[in-house]
Amino acid sequence: MFEIELSDTSMFKAAFEAISTIVDEIICVIDTEGFRVTALDRSHISFVNLDLHPTVFDTFECNVPEKITIDTAEFMRILKRMKNSDTLKLTMDEGNLIIKLIGDADRQFKLRLIDSEYDIPQPPQLEPPVSVVVPSDLVKDCLTDMALFDEKLYFMIDEDYFKVITNGEFGEANAAYLHGEDVNEVVKSSFSIPKLQEMFKASKFSDMCEISLGNDMPLILTFKLLSDDGQISFLLAPRLEAEE
Amino acid sequence: MFEIELSDTSMFKAAFEAISTIVDEIICVIDTEGFRVTALDRSHISFVNLDLHPTVFDTFECNVPEKITIDTAEFMRILKRMKNSDTLKLTMDEGNLIIKLIGDADRQFKLRLIDSEYDIPQPPQLEPPVSVVVPSDLVKDCLTDMALFDEKLYFMIDEDYFKVITNGEFGEANAAYLHGEDVNEVVKSSFSIPKLQEMFKASKFSDMCEISLGNDMPLILTFKLLSDDGQISFLLAPRLEAEE
Amino acid sequence: MFEIELSDTSMFKAAFEAISTIVDEIICVIDTEGFRVTALDRSHISFVNLDLHPTVFDTFECNVPEKITIDTAEFMRILKRMKNSDTLKLTMDEGNLIIKLIGDADRQFKLRLIDSEYDIPQPPQLEPPVSVVVPSDLVKDCLTDMALFDEKLYFMIDEDYFKVITNGEFGEANAAYLHGEDVNEVVKSSFSIPKLQEMFKASKFSDMCEISLGNDMPLILTFKLLSDDGQISFLLAPRLEAEE
Repeated sequence: MFEIELSDTSMFKAAFEAISTIVDEIICVIDTEGFRVTALDRSHISFVNLDLHPTVFDTFECNVPEKITIDTAEFMRILKRMKNSDTLKLTMDEGNLIIKLIGDADRQFKLRLIDSEYDIPQPPQLEPPVSVVVPSDLVKDCLTDMALFDEKLYFMIDEDYFKVITNGEFGEANAAYLHGEDVNEVVKSSFSIPKLQEMFKASKFSDMCEISLGNDMPLILTFKLLSDDGQISFLLAPRLEAEE
Repeated sequence: MFEIELSDTSMFKAAFEAISTIVDEIICVIDTEGFRVTALDRSHISFVNLDLHPTVFDTFECNVPEKITIDTAEFMRILKRMKNSDTLKLTMDEGNLIIKLIGDADRQFKLRLIDSEYDIPQPPQLEPPVSVVVPSDLVKDCLTDMALFDEKLYFMIDEDYFKVITNGEFGEANAAYLHGEDVNEVVKSSFSIPKLQEMFKASKFSDMCEISLGNDMPLILTFKLLSDDGQISFLLAPRLEAEE
Repeated sequence: MFEIELSDTSMFKAAFEAISTIVDEIICVIDTEGFRVTALDRSHISFVNLDLHPTVFDTFECNVPEKITIDTAEFMRILKRMKNSDTLKLTMDEGNLIIKLIGDADRQFKLRLIDSEYDIPQPPQLEPPVSVVVPSDLVKDCLTDMALFDEKLYFMIDEDYFKVITNGEFGEANAAYLHGEDVNEVVKSSFSIPKLQEMFKASKFSDMCEISLGNDMPLILTFKLLSDDGQISFLLAPRLEAEE
């Protein structure tokens, strides 16, 4: 059993805005190390990992580790009702996750737990060679820019710039951001714009995001809390196309 | 004939937002006691009564009492065009309600009156045993919360709390508000959430609303102007279900 | 070839919001006199003319006059991605208009030019006898008011007022604005409300607009920059109806 309380709820809501878009059901693990979600999307193209340490929470009590499965769309519908000034409290009873939104009125929601026996997916161990830190909103805006022209784009990092490039039927677009980091090689991979947009639904999790990139290899996208006691990261398979 | 002018138009617009959702046609009575609307919805489940004293208005002149019938949707379409800074002026000619919105430009709308001979409906005389006063927005928010789970809910008042409770297929929800009033019994009735939402379209009429409740009896919901010279009240039949 | 830069981009975006609604393709002329667009809508009912002098721009370099044809919808999709704080830079290469949005990240878009040999349309030379200057938003609001009742309206100017009048099935509406100008005659013409609404998409181009009107003759509507070095004007054919 557990009892956890969170007053900075906006990052939690941002995380689940992305998670609920990517996967239908998730296993949440709550134990003395914190609150964790690891999930793989249906098409096995993207992988998401949310890891919140106990220190993120105002209260974090967990005497017995729990592994619960919930419907992400139902959970998100309740989180959407949460105001910024509300405190979120999560507990459980035998068959339900109990969600309390504590504000002017105390509102309590019971969400039925799902019986499931599947295992928590293991992310592939990857270390893309180059990483840069970029403002989250800037990349999110670029995705909308690029979506005007095509449904795929290139992420590219060179010595000076993080670049986003697309090339569609009606025209082409590119954006460049001076990253200011020590990079000694040029890497480039192509990704699906809609899949990236799903991930960037978590952009309010933190102002900056880390882009880890290689040549024709998966992207690792990480949003970290400033306090360094929580993060949400995504892994996205590249688009590999012979003719490009 | 009458000539009435109103500069605090937001409460008037709020009232008609609810009224135009509940009934298609209304009889407005304008006489020396003020401006009144009494109407029963088509399904005879909800009853609305708007009562604005002459003192609510900046100008209220009425030499002969008038009883006019108007189409609420058409009237609302015009009221929606009213800005907060506009003054509303209502007069009539032989076949029309004349609506003036006085602001940067003076705009005048003529709305054809409807011929009708039906009587003004009389509300049932009811006195639910328990009443509490609750913030209007808080109840409105709860309705949206509860609508996630079901299309009906329970209003309940006990010694300490005003409670809203629902119980649907995917989960359940409840909210509690410490009412701070002297209540010595417990009352509970079930109502349709969509019907309540129609009534709470008037929530901007006043910050607080009075909930009058009994056991399996109609709800009386009243929004009063602070100045106590006007109110809009609703009566809603309970949902009576054997199996609950 | 040319290279032009603009930091006050909101009026430029407003102009193209109207232009892209009225015409699908436009010829832009860029030469030492500035940036000009002249276009006639498909149904030959409305005519638009945008004229921006070099002084409007932060940078305006043009060594050889250019006449380029672009798809207005595609151009507008890119302009919509421009933030208020972005600087807009336009250049071209052999087959493309190159649009740079310079802000936190520099974003570059290439828009394919269209091959076209058609001539730039010449607007009819008209001088409606009466002109008044009216707040742009006030007229725009009136259009929305009047659209409640009908799809056509009358613009009328008399000694004191600029009036907008409509008369539909459910009722009628009119608005009057005291123009404060020296007018000695009464003029009145009828126009299509949807066509006027297309033109007023440019209302953010300037706070005031000039309405030039005669009896049953075309309207000339002009939005001028305060600095007097740019304007967008529209000519709209009147609705002529025997039975009115």
